[in-house]
Amino acid sequence: MDFLFKRMAIVGLGLIGGSLARIAREKRIAEQIVGLGRSRETLELALAAGSIDEYSLDLKQGSGNADIVVIATPVGVVVDAVREIAGSLKPGTIITDVGSVKKKIVEEVESFLPSHLYFVGAHPIAGTENSGFQASFAQLFQGARCVFTPTERTNAPAAAKVKELWEQAGCDVILMEAEKHDRIFAAVSHLPHLIAYSLVNTVIDAEEKEGGLVNFSAGGFKDFTRIAASHPVMWRDIFFMNKENILPLIDHFTKVLEELKSYIVQEDSEQLTAVLDKSRRFRRKIN
Amino acid sequence: MDFLFKRMAIVGLGLIGGSLARIAREKRIAEQIVGLGRSRETLELALAAGSIDEYSLDLKQGSGNADIVVIATPVGVVVDAVREIAGSLKPGTIITDVGSVKKKIVEEVESFLPSHLYFVGAHPIAGTENSGFQASFAQLFQGARCVFTPTERTNAPAAAKVKELWEQAGCDVILMEAEKHDRIFAAVSHLPHLIAYSLVNTVIDAEEKEGGLVNFSAGGFKDFTRIAASHPVMWRDIFFMNKENILPLIDHFTKVLEELKSYIVQEDSEQLTAVLDKSRRFRRKIN
Repeated sequence: MDFLFKRMAIVGLGLIGGSLARIAREKRIAEQIVGLGRSRETLELALAAGSIDEYSLDLKQGSGNADIVVIATPVGVVVDAVREIAGSLKPGTIITDVGSVKKKIVEEVESFLPSHLYFVGAHPIAGTENSGFQASFAQLFQGARCVFTPTERTNAPAAAKVKELWEQAGCDVILMEAEKHDRIFAAVSHLPHLIAYSLVNTVIDAEEKEGGLVNFSAGGFKDFTRIAASHPVMWRDIFFMNKENILPLIDHFTKVLEELKSYIVQEDSEQLTAVLDKSRRFRRKIN
Repeated sequence: MDFLFKRMAIVGLGLIGGSLARIAREKRIAEQIVGLGRSRETLELALAAGSIDEYSLDLKQGSGNADIVVIATPVGVVVDAVREIAGSLKPGTIITDVGSVKKKIVEEVESFLPSHLYFVGAHPIAGTENSGFQASFAQLFQGARCVFTPTERTNAPAAAKVKELWEQAGCDVILMEAEKHDRIFAAVSHLPHLIAYSLVNTVIDAEEKEGGLVNFSAGGFKDFTRIAASHPVMWRDIFFMNKENILPLIDHFTKVLEELKSYIVQEDSEQLTAVLDKSRRFRRKIN
C-alpha cells in the first residue's frame, strides 16, 4: 500500500503527537516523519524510539518540505505555530491540529492563512491523565472518535486526506460545526476537568487541616484525582480559549449544587432523591 | 478451624450485606447465616445462591438466636433496625453496622442499647456503583480498609470479634474516632459524590438544550457518571446524616470554584496554572 503522506511533520511530541507518530510509523501512514518542538530531550526520545526519522527545533525549517503538518501543541499556541510556519510551507501543504477547542483556532487560522495552504480543524477524543512522549503509545486512538470541524472555506480533498489519516490511526471520524463542538466539550470535558481540579484543591485544603485523608481516597475521591492530574498548561489554555461556553456552565453547575445543598439543609428527601435518581438513570444512556 | 460465629444475621442483602454473606459462607466465618430484610425477592436470590441458610421478613424473629447481627441497610435506618431488634436479642449478642456515617449512629445506638448487648460501629470502605444482591461478590472486601469507631462504652471482646470478622472477610482494620471518620469521609467520599451528582445533572440540562452530548462522554465526564450512579437512597441518607461536615465543605468547594472562575475570566495564567499544578502534584501522594 502506498503511503498516505510522503513527509509528515508533527509539532509537539507529547501524548497525542507522540502517539500519532508511533501509529503513523506502525501503519506506514507517512514515509518520513519529522518531529518539531522546543524540547530537544523529547525529540531525542522520539528519535530513539524510531517514531520519527529526524527532528528540528526550528518549526519553519523542519516543516518546509512537508505534505502535512500536524500541530499537536497545547491549544493556546496552535495559531502562533501556524503563523510561524505558514510563510515557509510549499503550496498545497495541509495543516491540521488536535485541539480540544475548535472555533477560535479555526477562525483565527482562516483569517490569515494564504489560499494555497489548507487548514483542517480536528480533535481526536483520546488521552490519559499522563502526558509527554513517555506516555504515548500507538494504540491510543484505537476506537476513539475524532471530531472534524470543516468550514465552507475548508478544502475538500485536504479534509479527505486528514480524515484518512485519523481513520488509519484507529479513529471514527465525525463532522461537526466548530461552535457545536465547543459547546459539547465545554459540558462533557472542560467543565468536568474544572470541577475535578476544584474538588481536589478543596480536599488538599481539608487534608492540611485534618491530615490522613489521602489514605481513604478509595471512597470516591480517587477518580477525581486522576482527572485533575491532567496537563496543567494544556488545560489552562482550554479554559481560556473556550471560556465563552465554560463560564455559563460553571454558573449553572453552581446553581444545581446550591439546590442540592438546600435539599440537604432542609432534609427534603423527595427532592434530593429525585435528583440522585435522575443521575443514575442517565448513566444507562452512556453505556 | 472453628466458626467465628454460630449464627450470623445480616439485615439488608444488598451489595455490602450480600457480599458479606458470600464471603462468610466461603470462608466459613459463620455456621448459620440468616438473611433479614423487606424484599422477599432479594432474600430468595441470596438463598438460591447458597449465601444464606434461611431468611425472614421479620427482623425480630430472624435475629432472635443470633450471636451477631450485621446491619447493612442504608445509614438512615440503621438506628431504627437496632431499636426494633434490641428487645428480642439474647444477652451478649453483638450488633454491628457498615454505614458510611458513624457519629450519629454510634451515639444514638449507645443512648438506648441495654448493657447486655454490644454495639460496634464499623465501615468497610468497599463498594461499586452497582447495588443490590445481584451486584454482590465474595471478593468485594479483599484488600479494602475497614474503619472501626469504638467508644469508651464499646465492649472490647465484642470489638475484637467484629475485627476478626472483617479481617477474615479480607479487610485491613483501622481504629478511628467516629467524629474524625465523619470529617474524613465528608471530604474524600461524601463531597465527591455530591459534586458528581451535581455535575451529571448539569450535563443532563445541557443535553436537553443541545442534544448529542452523551456520545462524547469519554472526554472526562464518564467517570463522574459512574460515581453518580450510586444508590440514591443510600446517598440521600449519608448526605442528611453527615450534613454537619458536608455543608461547610460545599461552601469551601464553591469558594475554590469561584476563584478558578475568576482566574479564567481574567485569563490569569499564573494563578490558574498554580492551582492546576497543585492538583497534579497531589495525585502522586495518592498512589
